[in-house]
Amino acid sequence: MKKFLVLLLFIAGSSLSVYAQKTIKTLLSPGKTTSVKVGLNKSGEAFYKITYNGATVVDWSRLGIEARGHNFSSGFKLVSAEAGSHDETWKPVWGEESQIRDHYNELRYRLANETDAMTIHFRAYDNGVGFRYEFPAKEKADNITVTNELTEFQMTADHTAWWIPGDYDSNEHVYSTTSISGINTAPYMAEKSIVTQHIVDTYNVQTPLTMRAANGTHISIAEAALVDFGALHLTADPKTLKFKAFLISTSDPAVKSVNTLPFHTPWRAVLLNRDAAGLLGNRLILNLNEPCKLSDVSWIKPMKYCGVWWEMHVGKGTWDYSGSQNGDGFKNGQPSGKHSATTANTKKYIDFAAKNGLGGVLVEGWNIGWENWFNQQKEEVFSFTKAYPDYDVAELSRYAESKGVKLIMHHETSSAVTSYERQMDSAYAFMNQYGYPAVKTGYVGKIIPKGEWHDGQWMVNHYVRVAERTAKYRVMLDAHEPVRPSGLHRTYPNWLACEASRGQEFNAWSKGNPPEHECILPFTRILGGPMDYTPGIFQIEVNQFDPNKKERVHTTVAKQLALYVTLYSPLQMAADLPENYEKRPDVFQFIRDVPVDWDESRALNASVGDYLTMARKEKGKPNWFIGSITDENPRDFTFKLDFLEAGKTYEATIYEDGPDAHYEKNPYPVNIRKTTVRKGDTLRLRLAASGGCAISIMAN
Amino acid sequence: MKKFLVLLLFIAGSSLSVYAQKTIKTLLSPGKTTSVKVGLNKSGEAFYKITYNGATVVDWSRLGIEARGHNFSSGFKLVSAEAGSHDETWKPVWGEESQIRDHYNELRYRLANETDAMTIHFRAYDNGVGFRYEFPAKEKADNITVTNELTEFQMTADHTAWWIPGDYDSNEHVYSTTSISGINTAPYMAEKSIVTQHIVDTYNVQTPLTMRAANGTHISIAEAALVDFGALHLTADPKTLKFKAFLISTSDPAVKSVNTLPFHTPWRAVLLNRDAAGLLGNRLILNLNEPCKLSDVSWIKPMKYCGVWWEMHVGKGTWDYSGSQNGDGFKNGQPSGKHSATTANTKKYIDFAAKNGLGGVLVEGWNIGWENWFNQQKEEVFSFTKAYPDYDVAELSRYAESKGVKLIMHHETSSAVTSYERQMDSAYAFMNQYGYPAVKTGYVGKIIPKGEWHDGQWMVNHYVRVAERTAKYRVMLDAHEPVRPSGLHRTYPNWLACEASRGQEFNAWSKGNPPEHECILPFTRILGGPMDYTPGIFQIEVNQFDPNKKERVHTTVAKQLALYVTLYSPLQMAADLPENYEKRPDVFQFIRDVPVDWDESRALNASVGDYLTMARKEKGKPNWFIGSITDENPRDFTFKLDFLEAGKTYEATIYEDGPDAHYEKNPYPVNIRKTTVRKGDTLRLRLAASGGCAISIMAN
Repeated sequence: MKKFLVLLLFIAGSSLSVYAQKTIKTLLSPGKTTSVKVGLNKSGEAFYKITYNGATVVDWSRLGIEARGHNFSSGFKLVSAEAGSHDETWKPVWGEESQIRDHYNELRYRLANETDAMTIHFRAYDNGVGFRYEFPAKEKADNITVTNELTEFQMTADHTAWWIPGDYDSNEHVYSTTSISGINTAPYMAEKSIVTQHIVDTYNVQTPLTMRAANGTHISIAEAALVDFGALHLTADPKTLKFKAFLISTSDPAVKSVNTLPFHTPWRAVLLNRDAAGLLGNRLILNLNEPCKLSDVSWIKPMKYCGVWWEMHVGKGTWDYSGSQNGDGFKNGQPSGKHSATTANTKKYIDFAAKNGLGGVLVEGWNIGWENWFNQQKEEVFSFTKAYPDYDVAELSRYAESKGVKLIMHHETSSAVTSYERQMDSAYAFMNQYGYPAVKTGYVGKIIPKGEWHDGQWMVNHYVRVAERTAKYRVMLDAHEPVRPSGLHRTYPNWLACEASRGQEFNAWSKGNPPEHECILPFTRILGGPMDYTPGIFQIEVNQFDPNKKERVHTTVAKQLALYVTLYSPLQMAADLPENYEKRPDVFQFIRDVPVDWDESRALNASVGDYLTMARKEKGKPNWFIGSITDENPRDFTFKLDFLEAGKTYEATIYEDGPDAHYEKNPYPVNIRKTTVRKGDTLRLRLAASGGCAISIMAN
Repeated sequence: MKKFLVLLLFIAGSSLSVYAQKTIKTLLSPGKTTSVKVGLNKSGEAFYKITYNGATVVDWSRLGIEARGHNFSSGFKLVSAEAGSHDETWKPVWGEESQIRDHYNELRYRLANETDAMTIHFRAYDNGVGFRYEFPAKEKADNITVTNELTEFQMTADHTAWWIPGDYDSNEHVYSTTSISGINTAPYMAEKSIVTQHIVDTYNVQTPLTMRAANGTHISIAEAALVDFGALHLTADPKTLKFKAFLISTSDPAVKSVNTLPFHTPWRAVLLNRDAAGLLGNRLILNLNEPCKLSDVSWIKPMKYCGVWWEMHVGKGTWDYSGSQNGDGFKNGQPSGKHSATTANTKKYIDFAAKNGLGGVLVEGWNIGWENWFNQQKEEVFSFTKAYPDYDVAELSRYAESKGVKLIMHHETSSAVTSYERQMDSAYAFMNQYGYPAVKTGYVGKIIPKGEWHDGQWMVNHYVRVAERTAKYRVMLDAHEPVRPSGLHRTYPNWLACEASRGQEFNAWSKGNPPEHECILPFTRILGGPMDYTPGIFQIEVNQFDPNKKERVHTTVAKQLALYVTLYSPLQMAADLPENYEKRPDVFQFIRDVPVDWDESRALNASVGDYLTMARKEKGKPNWFIGSITDENPRDFTFKLDFLEAGKTYEATIYEDGPDAHYEKNPYPVNIRKTTVRKGDTLRLRLAASGGCAISIMAN
């Protein structure tokens, strides 16, 4: 206890009276791997500390909220500390496994001072800790105006961290890998590679923030169930190695959120694992979310899809009907001849999907408004019920249905969110009318209402509202450019996926995504929920339609296949053009075969930013699929297939990098070999530089 | 011409070359009473001048718009000046007369400079001038960001003006009467009588701004067809007597509006009449609006109504279910027993309406949200589809229908307009489901989206959107706290009325409306469109339920009756409580009889701020109704009934102030007398201090 006292004095900068010591409560996780201590100092300020496997991972750190006219930060006395526990196994509608155990002990640390009351609600899991602030109803109706969150995370060493800058409006940045003390967002501010980016602090980074301690422990600070609040970012202090919570503000920079009592914040989550592979199986964020709110989920179907999309990125066609993507088509309103979302072209994609077992076809550029939409921050740009004259909604609806293919509607809002909200009901009713079961939303550009941010309370509520409203219309949702997910797909399982990170599209028109990018995403962004990354580009050099184009994908083709397993999503695009797939039907076979819903998932190996290998069992079937990817370094891996069912034989088809494959020099060769395997057999994989290996293991 | 040249040099402060003189074009109204001259100075800046009956009423004044990256203000050359004329008689769906003549000559003054093109479109009427700025489409899609309007109105003498301060968020001010040079809004800024007021300029006033010249000419500067633009205010220069246009900004103070080309501004209108009575018959604002956009108007029905409303203002009941109007009812959610919008109470109003031929019953406080709504600037306060537990929507729908009465729904948005827009479709569908043909909207408090203003472009577009969306659902609209109307009810005749000024309600909880108030409204605010003033308060002292209440109505009862004729609206409330009307059935008979739609209207006399007398013929019937009101001064008037049909006899019922009536000392006595009248008969009216006289003249 003496050591603790010294630490608290040092960290919190305040002295502990005997009274304060009495306030200290300890919460242990069910398996006792994780412990949380919480207490008050002499000033009645709350602090907490987390240990994992006997080592302190978050040392004494401040808790509290600042709100106008309220005191949720100091002068507190402990009213009560109520313990509880919970053990439940629940079944997600879809997911990386068919059942998830939610097992924790909890503590409600109830505080009050002369004016206010607040509960800090902790849950301790064997692989992490969640806590949130809860504010009870008052006798008189009341609201709180949150101006700051005081939560801190005192790290105990200068861990390696994978981070993107704390940007109010974008999460589409390339990751940096530094020590905590090396965090510095200045290069991002200087480069301004994202048009809408808004980065204001040199030491501020986004969550989930994943770190590796010297002993291999992986710590990720995240949030769960982000509702009615600004997104949580973290500001590092490079000297003390302490992170302070930073909430994205409302349109008033001094206001972080306004909430009606009773209210609780989203959960603050600290994910804890012995190694990187363990982090890939950590479901703490999902467990901290509310159970499914939808009574009927029978209409929710994970799927693969192709779509009228990549061809516009690579210059084969245009989103707009009468121009060439730069607002030059307004005058005469006549077709340019380059419009991609035509009835005929869409039918080609429908045919392709039907032939190859892809469930859906996304069509972008189908609706009027694309001539003058980008970066204008104006309303009433798009109609979500009016198609261009060359796109026959009724005929395509009929045609798709006749082929057993679902059309996925596209709603680019241009971030004129007010406009979109006005059209939501009519847009979803229109989708119902024409049998579209899914929508891809987009939020490109600065937000309207002006002054609001992609990651602020107003938009956070909007995304949830869209999830609720689409559910009402039995529409599945794929949100692009939203705030990063925080596990809300447990509560709204129609919310299949988000982009909310730097996706494949950057390879079509920017310096692209470095080879390590897909080796970081599963440990950071994807901890919060599935990403619609749009893998599967076979034409690595994207100059197919424009010889001057220098952009390219920074992987081998085999790695593109492996992404279907390593980047989990219930919605996976086969993003390349049908004609590119038709040139390589042997390779495309893996995309035909790979499912999008799983009974079980196992990380066979992993090192953040370097490599990972996932094995997953197809939902309701005995088949397994393996994806293995590496960064710019070639690697050899050997695995024992000890997860297969004993006594069964399987046909494994291995799609591996060709002998001289290299993501820059020779990305195309894919060597395909078949072999019969049984439980316990060993497989050896050779991955090229930024290469990969995809394996289907089909039960005989 | 020499005199003109000197004037132009003086006023515009720039010299006219021979070239500039060649640019001067003159437009005469059909009857030649009004002329407009327009020309360019040496710098290619546009100016105009208006004469009326041979006298200059607007001397050479600047024209132009400032927009980012564009030049719509100088360096112009005259491309062409195209003349035209128009003479049409159109029939409003409802109105002060059954047909309106739209007769004008027009001039399109087409300008171009090195970068931009603009047309200034003038229309000259015998009773005024309209002009607007028109911007053509460009070859490439484009938007303009308007930062300032340069339009000026150079008055030629220090006229008497009736004005309210230029407030971004409210038009509910008491009028001031001063010379132009005496305009000073500082007292309003100091008093802060309106919670949401935002007045920032000492010399800035709202339109319509009505002025009286020494020769009796009445000049009113207004705007027509306010769509997709900030509202027009005017900033006076007390030295030069020049008004400069001032547009209410967007949430960015430097931006007045963002518009997509092609675009035109609303019309700037200068109404011109020889006297105040003439101004009451001036339909310039309506004529400048677009024709009706609705294909079917059969469902649009002017009506009188009563409602569950005034009783909350005077303290008999509450809007909220579980509290007492101050947010104290949140905790237990139990009924306070004071809630007014109950099923039983609403049935009383329905019975009263049915018995007295009132078409509708408004019910406020029927929906959940009133416990914590006021001045919070937060979203999701009200549901527009969920009633309080003591308000049975289905039963009341059935009951009202059985009585032949229509229910008017109330939608208080608390200015959380984003919330309202999300609910519009479901709210109007709910109204359709339960047979509500009309809605009263409310915009109390600061606007969400935060930073937007009641009178800025965003909200201007919202009000129009609500008119369009309600029309789609065949719902009639009465908007409270919107921007002041600008004649859009011609285009959207389901938009029956607006509050948009200081209504009767101020008499219930403030210093109230001075006796002259209702003698100013018809010459200012109501020029733009009908006002839902809610006349008809019989219980002048509002301390009926609270002896401590000192507030009162500042008229006699007879004046309250006369307001049904003097304050034109197709939607007129009988605002007092049924029990107060039932005490005076003889007096109430006038409210039973008076119609709300007219074939013809005549101002028999008028003096702005002093008195006015209107005679109106009931639509489709031979009956006439007269209303006469005065300010704090008693007056005697004598009229010849020369508008009656020759040969017919009529029974006139005269509701006049009792012999000793006085709005403060003795407001209640109403003397009712009946007499048979014929065309050419003379009537003598005696009006008490802030008194009035109402007459029904029913054909035998």
